[in-house]
Amino acid sequence: MFVSLGPGDPELITLKGLNFLQQADIIFCPSTLTPSGKVSSRSKDILLELGLEESRISLFSVPMDKNRSEAIISYKKISTKIEKRYKNGSRIAVAAEGDAGFYSSTHYICDNLSVNNIPTKRIAGVPAFIACGALANIHTVKQEEELYIIPGVITQKDLEERILYGSSIVIMKPSQSEEAIKKVISSMQYVTFHYFENVGIKDKEFYSSHKQNIIERKFPYFSLFIICK
Amino acid sequence: MFVSLGPGDPELITLKGLNFLQQADIIFCPSTLTPSGKVSSRSKDILLELGLEESRISLFSVPMDKNRSEAIISYKKISTKIEKRYKNGSRIAVAAEGDAGFYSSTHYICDNLSVNNIPTKRIAGVPAFIACGALANIHTVKQEEELYIIPGVITQKDLEERILYGSSIVIMKPSQSEEAIKKVISSMQYVTFHYFENVGIKDKEFYSSHKQNIIERKFPYFSLFIICK
Repeated sequence: MFVSLGPGDPELITLKGLNFLQQADIIFCPSTLTPSGKVSSRSKDILLELGLEESRISLFSVPMDKNRSEAIISYKKISTKIEKRYKNGSRIAVAAEGDAGFYSSTHYICDNLSVNNIPTKRIAGVPAFIACGALANIHTVKQEEELYIIPGVITQKDLEERILYGSSIVIMKPSQSEEAIKKVISSMQYVTFHYFENVGIKDKEFYSSHKQNIIERKFPYFSLFIICK
Repeated sequence: MFVSLGPGDPELITLKGLNFLQQADIIFCPSTLTPSGKVSSRSKDILLELGLEESRISLFSVPMDKNRSEAIISYKKISTKIEKRYKNGSRIAVAAEGDAGFYSSTHYICDNLSVNNIPTKRIAGVPAFIACGALANIHTVKQEEELYIIPGVITQKDLEERILYGSSIVIMKPSQSEEAIKKVISSMQYVTFHYFENVGIKDKEFYSSHKQNIIERKFPYFSLFIICK
């Protein structure tokens, strides 16, 4: 079972997700290696805050490299581990931040497992952009408005065209197009840019819709834009 | 406080949402009049299943007419009611299906309240399309794929162009463009259409990705498409 943890605030997990986690024999959790060599796992932090026992949590490492070949090897490894535990009759959960079907790298694991005929299921969760909209207390999309979601890579021209086209826009990982986005913020005077950092991480959340403030910041990995008409 | 209830399965509410509802003095809930004259409220059904007391639930009617003027009067009325209760010191919740900031008509109430300087906040929830993706166990968007969300009105030509452009697409209320969508399903052989009805409603859920099955159905109000590359 792939369990969505929601955007980071432990209380934003669903009842269904928490119920399953409480009954799982083992919970696999993604972790990354920080530049300083520390193992970090937001998912594990959420699970511990929810009162789940550390002894049932098993970390797997996800390399953050742009070159995905190392990541693919890592997903293969964890899939083999899951397969073994599954054949031993364990009740297995794989945790994922946000929603596990919405820009989640757990699809690699799903794909590996289904090749080997291991059945998978998923429990839905709150995606990060939905939590950002709630934090800013804006209605991201209303009535007949369309919404365009961009994972991160976008040129200045493309972004301007899409804003002019009229839909609301979410940019998920704007650090990948920082320069282009900042140029659009400067050039489009009458458009509102809602900018978020680290939503769901206690004491680290940041939100602004003030253009100069946004332009002066360096976008971290966990940042997000909602651009409204 | 605007509390998102999630897509319909009571267990898909967040812990945060449920906690707030349990402490609220009054929970305002949208309801509609069915053609047979019965008052129906999915939100109220969810609240009752979650064990909340009926005595704290207050229904307000939302006319489903295409002409929004009656709806606007209705939202004004409920906003005045909320304002009065707020000034009496009540802890007020307004319930909304899905996420209350994502194609939710609660924005009318929010707008009315903010004009009168009544502060509002929101608790995020799981949108319907996220629950549909989990039900079908598909990864709606992966890696660098873009996602286009269309509230319901689309022409055959526009939909075909967007599919060819390459992003994944969600259509929220396809009953508004049933004929156009069916033509696209017939014309685009190599595209997968995931079709859902009544997701989150017990014993009424329907899911198919079989083209002929989909074309033969009449799309009800609570239907949804996810179109993947």
